[in-house]
Amino acid sequence: VRRERTVAFSDGVFAIAITLLVLTIQIPHLQGDSQSQLDRLLDQELPDLFAYFIGFFVIGGFWYRHHMFFDSLRGFDRRLLLANMVFLSLIALIPFPTAVLGDHLGLTVSVVMFAVVVALAGIADAVMLWLALDRDLLPLEEEARPRRYVARSLLIPGLFLLSIPVGFASASAAEWMWIGVLLIGPRVAARLGWVRPWAGR
Amino acid sequence: VRRERTVAFSDGVFAIAITLLVLTIQIPHLQGDSQSQLDRLLDQELPDLFAYFIGFFVIGGFWYRHHMFFDSLRGFDRRLLLANMVFLSLIALIPFPTAVLGDHLGLTVSVVMFAVVVALAGIADAVMLWLALDRDLLPLEEEARPRRYVARSLLIPGLFLLSIPVGFASASAAEWMWIGVLLIGPRVAARLGWVRPWAGR
Amino acid sequence: VRRERTVAFSDGVFAIAITLLVLTIQIPHLQGDSQSQLDRLLDQELPDLFAYFIGFFVIGGFWYRHHMFFDSLRGFDRRLLLANMVFLSLIALIPFPTAVLGDHLGLTVSVVMFAVVVALAGIADAVMLWLALDRDLLPLEEEARPRRYVARSLLIPGLFLLSIPVGFASASAAEWMWIGVLLIGPRVAARLGWVRPWAGR
Amino acid sequence: VRRERTVAFSDGVFAIAITLLVLTIQIPHLQGDSQSQLDRLLDQELPDLFAYFIGFFVIGGFWYRHHMFFDSLRGFDRRLLLANMVFLSLIALIPFPTAVLGDHLGLTVSVVMFAVVVALAGIADAVMLWLALDRDLLPLEEEARPRRYVARSLLIPGLFLLSIPVGFASASAAEWMWIGVLLIGPRVAARLGWVRPWAGR
Repeated sequence: VRRERTVAFSDGVFAIAITLLVLTIQIPHLQGDSQSQLDRLLDQELPDLFAYFIGFFVIGGFWYRHHMFFDSLRGFDRRLLLANMVFLSLIALIPFPTAVLGDHLGLTVSVVMFAVVVALAGIADAVMLWLALDRDLLPLEEEARPRRYVARSLLIPGLFLLSIPVGFASASAAEWMWIGVLLIGPRVAARLGWVRPWAGR
Repeated sequence: VRRERTVAFSDGVFAIAITLLVLTIQIPHLQGDSQSQLDRLLDQELPDLFAYFIGFFVIGGFWYRHHMFFDSLRGFDRRLLLANMVFLSLIALIPFPTAVLGDHLGLTVSVVMFAVVVALAGIADAVMLWLALDRDLLPLEEEARPRRYVARSLLIPGLFLLSIPVGFASASAAEWMWIGVLLIGPRVAARLGWVRPWAGR
Repeated sequence: VRRERTVAFSDGVFAIAITLLVLTIQIPHLQGDSQSQLDRLLDQELPDLFAYFIGFFVIGGFWYRHHMFFDSLRGFDRRLLLANMVFLSLIALIPFPTAVLGDHLGLTVSVVMFAVVVALAGIADAVMLWLALDRDLLPLEEEARPRRYVARSLLIPGLFLLSIPVGFASASAAEWMWIGVLLIGPRVAARLGWVRPWAGR
Repeated sequence: VRRERTVAFSDGVFAIAITLLVLTIQIPHLQGDSQSQLDRLLDQELPDLFAYFIGFFVIGGFWYRHHMFFDSLRGFDRRLLLANMVFLSLIALIPFPTAVLGDHLGLTVSVVMFAVVVALAGIADAVMLWLALDRDLLPLEEEARPRRYVARSLLIPGLFLLSIPVGFASASAAEWMWIGVLLIGPRVAARLGWVRPWAGR
């Protein structure tokens, strides 16, 4: 029962954090004629919408990984519960850097802040994997090559960490890099066989 | 297990998005005597309440369709999971155009924005149907006439798309059109036999 | 499956609406020395906290009734689903009049608004009972005396309706009346045997 | 069924309250050059982030206790349901003192307010334990030494109560005390054998 309630609690946090992202979009005060209203909307809202969708698919991606990880887990212990809590405290934080990003899409500071929070969440995710391997809670296949398995899980946080120096050179370059990671990442992982075959349940 | 957790996650997003709508209603600052307070309330709050209820029943309608669709699904795959994520990113966005609508009920810009987001969510919903038919994941009845089945599912987003040019002529005409769709739509669908007979569970 | 998913969705809306109430409490800007900070806090926050707890136990009470009603339901149909949606649209609205109440505890307007929304939610709740009785979806005991059963369920919304004229005479009298209803109501109902014996599950 | 739905509802409130904490972090308005932006961020956001993590692990700790308590419960009655509702009304309130704490980390008033709310939630938690023991709803082991069992559960709220006089002397001393409780508390409890052995489910 314990693992199930933890999964349900985690799903709740994921669902709420992902839906709270909409509150990061500022409501425009529309004035003047239709043309100036539209100009204002596009100026103000496009960066917010960009940040919204980036934040949504980042949290969605973490949800998918969490889902696969808990699905394959054979047991559960207190250390994993604590690591999951730390992980969730970073997932639930994501709406904050997303809001800053939407307000200041071109600033290095906001790009760095977003990348740091995502990378920290990715590291907490990798720590959970490592703890599960350490206690023999994952199926045999992963246990045979634990280091490689954890290394793979660090790829995405690694790319977000890499986007920090990129962001110092150009904020928009870092943002394109994230889009690339979100679009291409899952396909590369599937092609390299890093993702377990889908059982179709 | 995977489909169930996706359904639970989706239900969470639906429930949160529908309940966050209340945050789009502005809290009035009441001053002066009772009469002027009441005038202020009615002026300020009626458009917000109108937008709240429109948004509530639009999201509620999508929830009902989602519910029926996942109930009849015989399997689940990665493409459906991704399409569901895109669909949810549009459902979770609805509080934003609802807030703009409540602030500017008479503006073409806000009517168009609301209609566009609802139509996009409807298209994502139709894409999920199409993906399920394509992979033989729906029961036999629907598979026999896939095009007709998907065409029907495009009726509601089509009416919201149609309300965009209507909104350019008159914002309130488009809003009356939405009310009509929400009130009459389900009955027409039931009468034409487009809705599966209710099992009473 | 359908009834279960509706119950889960409703529970989500209840849990979110009840937790969003905390956002109706204004964050004070504390300035000056300790004494003036404390004065400011008490002035500003006590009305908000009062409204918070009233709103919390009103929504909590509706949740309990909903819980007992769906527990005893023998079936479910489309009309009940729709009535439940209308009911939830009023439950999810409660944070709005709660926020107005916390800002203007002494105004007739805010007392009336809160009482109207709670009474409407209570009426929607009674309509659900009536629909279930009409379709023979409740156990035999209630079906034998349907009118009396629905009349009892209108007692609480009736008392909130009654608090509207009371509120025109004195806002605080209406508020004391609500506290009385919340504190004494459940005990009276239990003593009169209106509540089913508790099964201890 | 009743206990399960109460647990699901409580989990919903916990998950929403813990995720709403992110809304207590103020979105900075960044201006000037990179250096002044960064200074502003650190000045404004570090106290908010500190309060966010304190609030997150306080709510998380209560969730864990709630989880263990309901797991070991052999039955459920109306008094426990009501006590749980009062407990949840205090859990759902925590984002409010957390927001005040983040805005005024150095003020005695905000430290006292946070400690009072946490201590009240802890007392409500102990009342639930006591009610369960009083009705023989807990397994034999705890029933043999009810007073000691309830006394232990008052340790954490007691330490938060103790932090109130400490906060009058120094706000930051009280905050360090909380961090100590959160970091060391679980270990001490585990070492003293106050926590049931983990079943690894």
